[in-house]
Parts: sequence; C-alpha cells; structure tokens
Amino acid sequence: MKGFFLTLDGIDGAGKSTHLAFIQQWIQKQGIEAIFTREPGGTPLGEELRNILLHTSNQIHPETEALMMFTARCELLNEVIIPALNKGCWVVSDRFSDATFAYQGGGRGVAWEKMEQLQQWVQNDLRPNMTIILDVPLEVSLERLERSREKDRFEQESPDFFIRVRQAYLKRAEDTQHYAVVRSDRDIEEVQADIEKILSGCLKQYQSL
Amino acid sequence: MKGFFLTLDGIDGAGKSTHLAFIQQWIQKQGIEAIFTREPGGTPLGEELRNILLHTSNQIHPETEALMMFTARCELLNEVIIPALNKGCWVVSDRFSDATFAYQGGGRGVAWEKMEQLQQWVQNDLRPNMTIILDVPLEVSLERLERSREKDRFEQESPDFFIRVRQAYLKRAEDTQHYAVVRSDRDIEEVQADIEKILSGCLKQYQSL
Repeated sequence: MKGFFLTLDGIDGAGKSTHLAFIQQWIQKQGIEAIFTREPGGTPLGEELRNILLHTSNQIHPETEALMMFTARCELLNEVIIPALNKGCWVVSDRFSDATFAYQGGGRGVAWEKMEQLQQWVQNDLRPNMTIILDVPLEVSLERLERSREKDRFEQESPDFFIRVRQAYLKRAEDTQHYAVVRSDRDIEEVQADIEKILSGCLKQYQSL
Repeated sequence: MKGFFLTLDGIDGAGKSTHLAFIQQWIQKQGIEAIFTREPGGTPLGEELRNILLHTSNQIHPETEALMMFTARCELLNEVIIPALNKGCWVVSDRFSDATFAYQGGGRGVAWEKMEQLQQWVQNDLRPNMTIILDVPLEVSLERLERSREKDRFEQESPDFFIRVRQAYLKRAEDTQHYAVVRSDRDIEEVQADIEKILSGCLKQYQSL
C-alpha cells in the first residue's frame, strides 16, 4: 500500500484530543492528502457500535467487548482505511488496535494471545506504520478525567484498571520500530516538539516508500 | 457440562417457528428443566446487535457481519448458555453458529476457515449436542418468504444467495453424529414425527450423561 498509516493512542486523560489537533494542522501544512478517523467508530455502523460500547447500561462480557471493538474495526478497515491507503493517502486514526489490547486485554483481562488472534483475523498483516502513544502517570490521568463532565463506561473504571491499561500500552510499545512513547505531562510546547520530530520521521519514511 | 444443548436451524422459510413451538411443548411434557433462546440476540446486548444486523440501512462488510454475529453469540454463551448447561438444564436455541456458517460463510462468501477460527475463539470446544436442520427446496423457501409481511436484511437477498446458504447448511450437517436434517416440505405430522424421534434420542443421550 502506498499510503501512510499513523495512529495516536494512550490512556484516557493523556491529552489525545489536544495533540491530535496539532498533528492534523502539521499534516495539512505539508500539503499531504490525509483522512482523519476515530475508533471505535469512523463508519456509520461503527458509530452505532461505539454508542453501545461507550454508553450502554447493558452488561458486556470482556471477550464480547473485545469482539465488538474488532467488529467496528473490521468495518473501518475495509470501508475507509484500506481504500485510502491504496490511493496513497495518509490515514490518521484516533485510537486503533492498541486501545483494544490495552483496555480489553490489559484492563479487562482478555488473554493477550486471543487479542492477537483477533488482530490477525481482522487486519491480516496490516499494521500502522507508526503509533504514537501518549503516556502520563496515573495521577495525571485521573486528575484530568476528574475534570471531564460526563464519563463513558471506560472512564468510570477504577484506578487499578487504568494501571493495567497503561502497562499494556507500554508493553505494546516495546516494538520501538513502530511505536513512539511521548510523555505528555510536560509543557505542551515540549510535547509538540517531540511529536513534530516523529512526524518528520514519518514523512521521510513515506517519501521513501 | 451436565445439560443438553439443542439447536434448531435452517434456511428462512423452512418452518423454524412452527417446529420450535412443537419442540418446546415436547420438552415441557417431559418435565425437563429447559431454557429457550434465539440468535442473534438472547441477551440485552445481543438484542441491540440483532436490531442492527436485521434492520440497519447502513452498509456491513461480510467479515464485519460475521464478527458481529459471533459478538452477540459470545455474550449469549457466557451469560446464558454456559451457566444453564452447568446447572444441568436443557438449552434450546433458535439458530446458532450454523446460521453464521450458512449466511455469512455460504451466503456472503466469508472464508470457511475464518469462520472456524471465530467459532473456536468464541466457543472453545463447546458445540451443540444436537442440531436439527430444517431443510426445504429453494422454491418452497422463496414461496413462504413471499408470504411474510416485512422482510429483514437477509430475507431480501437473491435466490442465488439462498442456494449458497442451503448448501452450507447441508455441508455442516455432514457430521451426522451431531446433526439431523429434516425435510420440512412435507405434512406437518410427518415432520413432527421425525423431530420427535430425534428428541427421544436426545433424551436418552442426556439421561446417560
């Protein structure tokens, strides 16, 4: 595929929205053709599933939740991401499979191996070219969440849950060829300088494809 | 598990509703403790997914559809079927995995091997003790569907689709130890006599467990 697939991920309260806006501006400044999407969601069906996943008062078994995340992902990949990459576009996704490994794998305890099986089933060998993990200590995450108005099903979880989520993100990021961890409990300028360096690296990689 | 897991399946228009009522009466007459459920659905979350699967006007990719069926199934298994079987109950389900092999595998063309992977992921080694496949020739199925008032997303498919669905059911039923195919384009009494024989066999098997 000729495009470049970039994902931004990390624990709730890590500052994804803020830095996503910066990434979007940076990419547009380069004149690169790009689409921006989010998970779970990004397709009409996926947004229906997102609404259930984040807001249902019905019970969801951990394995069911993992399957449902990959269901929304399957639609997004086949209908949006793969066609865009085939055209040579950049695709930037607000969350991707790492979130499912972190929240349903780490947080809810679904076996890592079962997560990898679903990843392979849905994505075959497609993986993001680069994933930026925004990382903050638990206290920062919890404090930022405290300030948010309405919490979704995940944001209402216990501190222990978020400790496991964060550990799972860092475990995924051990593959340093495809991951960059950015500590985002620093001045916004410092964080963005780091992100900009990563993006420049992505651009070089893209131009050499 | 101490219970007995019976499923009834088959192409639309094969007479599932009629014969399910007969099965229910027969089981109740034996004084067996049993629960009756349906797919997709059978749990609050599963019914939300059923509503999308049968009635959404949004596009659904075939692999997404297969995943979504197994998502609803995962919830039903973990929250309803497995607990009931563990208590020694009979569980009777109106459709189960065979329908996904038939409609998403046969009908929509999702690879058989990928269907088997999902079946294993969700069910581990759990399979129904017995599956009754109601079978009718295509013309009968189509004529019965013609008479139904409102068609769901699947019932609106082409005759070719239903040919593939029926073939996939019959392929699954080649495992004659766990499947019984009952031709249901005959007099209702003949069909029910056959079903009763199968149920008597199930009861013997259950009592010897």
